[in-house]
Amino acid sequence: MSSTKPPGGTRDFLPDEIRRREHVVGVVRRVYERYGFEPLETPAFENIETLLGKYGDEGNKLIFKILKRGEHASSGEADLALRYDLTVPLARVVAQYQNELPKFFKRYQIQPVWRADRPAKGRFREFYQCDIDSIGSTSPVVEAEQLSAVSEVLTTLGFGDFTIQLNHRVLLSAMLEAADVPAARHGEALVAIDKLDKIGKDGVAKELVARGISDASSVACLDALDSVPAFEQLIATHEKGLAARAELDRILSLVAATAAAQHVSFVPRLARGLSYYTGAIMEISVPDLAGSLGGGGRYDNLVGMFLGRDVPACGFSLGLERIIVVMTERGMFPASVAGSNADAMVTLWNDGSLSDALSLAGELRRGGVRVDVYPEADKLGKQFKYAASRNVPFVAIVGDDERANGTVSVKDLRSGEQHAMPRGDVAAFILRTSTSRTTGTP
Amino acid sequence: MSSTKPPGGTRDFLPDEIRRREHVVGVVRRVYERYGFEPLETPAFENIETLLGKYGDEGNKLIFKILKRGEHASSGEADLALRYDLTVPLARVVAQYQNELPKFFKRYQIQPVWRADRPAKGRFREFYQCDIDSIGSTSPVVEAEQLSAVSEVLTTLGFGDFTIQLNHRVLLSAMLEAADVPAARHGEALVAIDKLDKIGKDGVAKELVARGISDASSVACLDALDSVPAFEQLIATHEKGLAARAELDRILSLVAATAAAQHVSFVPRLARGLSYYTGAIMEISVPDLAGSLGGGGRYDNLVGMFLGRDVPACGFSLGLERIIVVMTERGMFPASVAGSNADAMVTLWNDGSLSDALSLAGELRRGGVRVDVYPEADKLGKQFKYAASRNVPFVAIVGDDERANGTVSVKDLRSGEQHAMPRGDVAAFILRTSTSRTTGTP
Repeated sequence: MSSTKPPGGTRDFLPDEIRRREHVVGVVRRVYERYGFEPLETPAFENIETLLGKYGDEGNKLIFKILKRGEHASSGEADLALRYDLTVPLARVVAQYQNELPKFFKRYQIQPVWRADRPAKGRFREFYQCDIDSIGSTSPVVEAEQLSAVSEVLTTLGFGDFTIQLNHRVLLSAMLEAADVPAARHGEALVAIDKLDKIGKDGVAKELVARGISDASSVACLDALDSVPAFEQLIATHEKGLAARAELDRILSLVAATAAAQHVSFVPRLARGLSYYTGAIMEISVPDLAGSLGGGGRYDNLVGMFLGRDVPACGFSLGLERIIVVMTERGMFPASVAGSNADAMVTLWNDGSLSDALSLAGELRRGGVRVDVYPEADKLGKQFKYAASRNVPFVAIVGDDERANGTVSVKDLRSGEQHAMPRGDVAAFILRTSTSRTTGTP
Repeated sequence: MSSTKPPGGTRDFLPDEIRRREHVVGVVRRVYERYGFEPLETPAFENIETLLGKYGDEGNKLIFKILKRGEHASSGEADLALRYDLTVPLARVVAQYQNELPKFFKRYQIQPVWRADRPAKGRFREFYQCDIDSIGSTSPVVEAEQLSAVSEVLTTLGFGDFTIQLNHRVLLSAMLEAADVPAARHGEALVAIDKLDKIGKDGVAKELVARGISDASSVACLDALDSVPAFEQLIATHEKGLAARAELDRILSLVAATAAAQHVSFVPRLARGLSYYTGAIMEISVPDLAGSLGGGGRYDNLVGMFLGRDVPACGFSLGLERIIVVMTERGMFPASVAGSNADAMVTLWNDGSLSDALSLAGELRRGGVRVDVYPEADKLGKQFKYAASRNVPFVAIVGDDERANGTVSVKDLRSGEQHAMPRGDVAAFILRTSTSRTTGTP
């Protein structure tokens, strides 16, 4: 007998967990739709050459590869690979459908990705990404709208205390140049600086020196990253840096008119790990979570990789799993989300009443009630107990008396109260009295 | 430059296509929830030994195998495999969480599955299955409820003309026994009989004889399959057959009290290909589609395979892709589903008006309007043209006059009419006048 656990690093989602996930995904979709983003879905796997070489050496190793079908299976040749992120598939889609897609293509995509990481607590091999990307414009309206949309998602979910850090890749380059870090070391320097919150100033200083950056440069950078005035002083004569600073200011002034207004600030130390950013970078965090709830930025050279020309692009990725972790720890899910599988359960009186029970279930469902039917004629007490164990608030009973009168007895399992009422009134009574309807499902 | 097409047998879903799919999936979920089915999701891949050997030799060949990570990648060793259907994962889940799941577990699951078939027109390597399964009861209430739920899904989607064929595996065995088909040939005989609608009586007769079944047996079967009275006559003295017939009658009498009432009939020739059915079998079809829109049946020995004991189970699978094909061909999608990405687009008057445009967009969104913002200050005519090309019905303009007055000009791009109105009235005006809101998204 093989193991019945899901594979390492993956999860089965039982009903209650799905209801929590759907509550979050429902809010994400609703808000993104209200911002004019459109849904996109791509296949779970891509041709292997589409993915290889796109995520660096480390990424390459984490790509799940699928054996070629049929006679080639024994050779170990792989021709397909599981989706590793939502950005490379987007780039492929932009190239493939360039004549069908609008000039300004704004899409959201909420799909799982797979990474062959070693499974660990909180690190999954299958997890969902929720991305928005705006393709085709370099306007700061794009960044402001994305920050507003993401803020509205979090606010709608009940987060009030999130902060969004904003920075600009060109500003960081300007700082490194002004601090005399050689151009060839910029990438490594950013990787080290990105760890500032984790390993502190001393830790980063050590890493910078270990990467062959001089003490003086290291000190200059770390001083500048301490405060906005220090940072601005260091780049005060750097032309490109000043232009990037002006761009950030335009974004910040637009943000002031949006839902993100109270949350965004310029933070020079924000670096973000990914190498492909070319402009604004942004990251969301909450006090009680190490790491971020999401992040993004402008990356004007990536989406065009399959087209052979640059295409302006800016994106933001929300971490669904982390949002759910924080919401669960804080008890942020509305009571209605936990819910039950039904608002009412129709009991079975005896074998002769099965048809009538199904009729009643049909009437209640047409009235908008979610109805389960106990499948087997059995002792009523046992049926009540089953409904209660399933958190179903009401049971409907049609015994011989009720059938003769055209009534139904409705028992509220929370209060224990039982009322007989005309059959036609039951649906409205249950909807009016029920307080445990799930709202996460459309 | 590698190809930008999705891999053979898979599809990219652009926004309009997703809206159609979500319309269907939304109805399916809403109806199944109303019947007390609960959502379940399982990982895209399983440990390879969970899947191998579960689908027969043909199935084994069609399982996508994933290379083991890390140093083993070069050996061609596969340790994971992509989900091939939703039934084996359900069986694993029932075994793994037997102490958490209710006695009568009713779940729906709508997820993609992958099969390494040769891609062909209408045959995909990635496609969605929509399954309901009821675990834990042998009551005919289970079949009746499933048939009712499936009928309500189709009726809600706008199908009026579907028929559901109902039969029973034990009845077919009884027929084969009564016709003196040797027990060892029953499986093959059913595979041949399942082709009756495709290849006709003569074709099946040839196949039966080719499989070593006597002419007399073949004729006896084919005559019995011609009509219900002929069938009943053949099994008139077969005890198990009569018991199965009585079971079907109980299901049919319960069905009469449900939404499936007008659609279901006993059809002796229905065989269904899968070997694991043990009781009632059912299949839905519409006149203009060869093949079925879905099917299912009772399979009391399969779900318990990981538990080592039988567990009663009955399931029905709807073919999402086929439903969409028929609905598209018949033009059954409501106009609102095609939709656009927004109800209104806020235009940009000039660079100085960007903040105000974002404020207006925020106000309208809070009023429930889906709003796109043109990202760059440009000629108004060009912005109108863009909105029209995106099927956005309204554009909002705040020029210098409007800003001075606290008004907004709203242009209906369908009629060409333009009205100035107080800023606070715009959202309500657009919601009232718009007729192209999508309803597929929650």
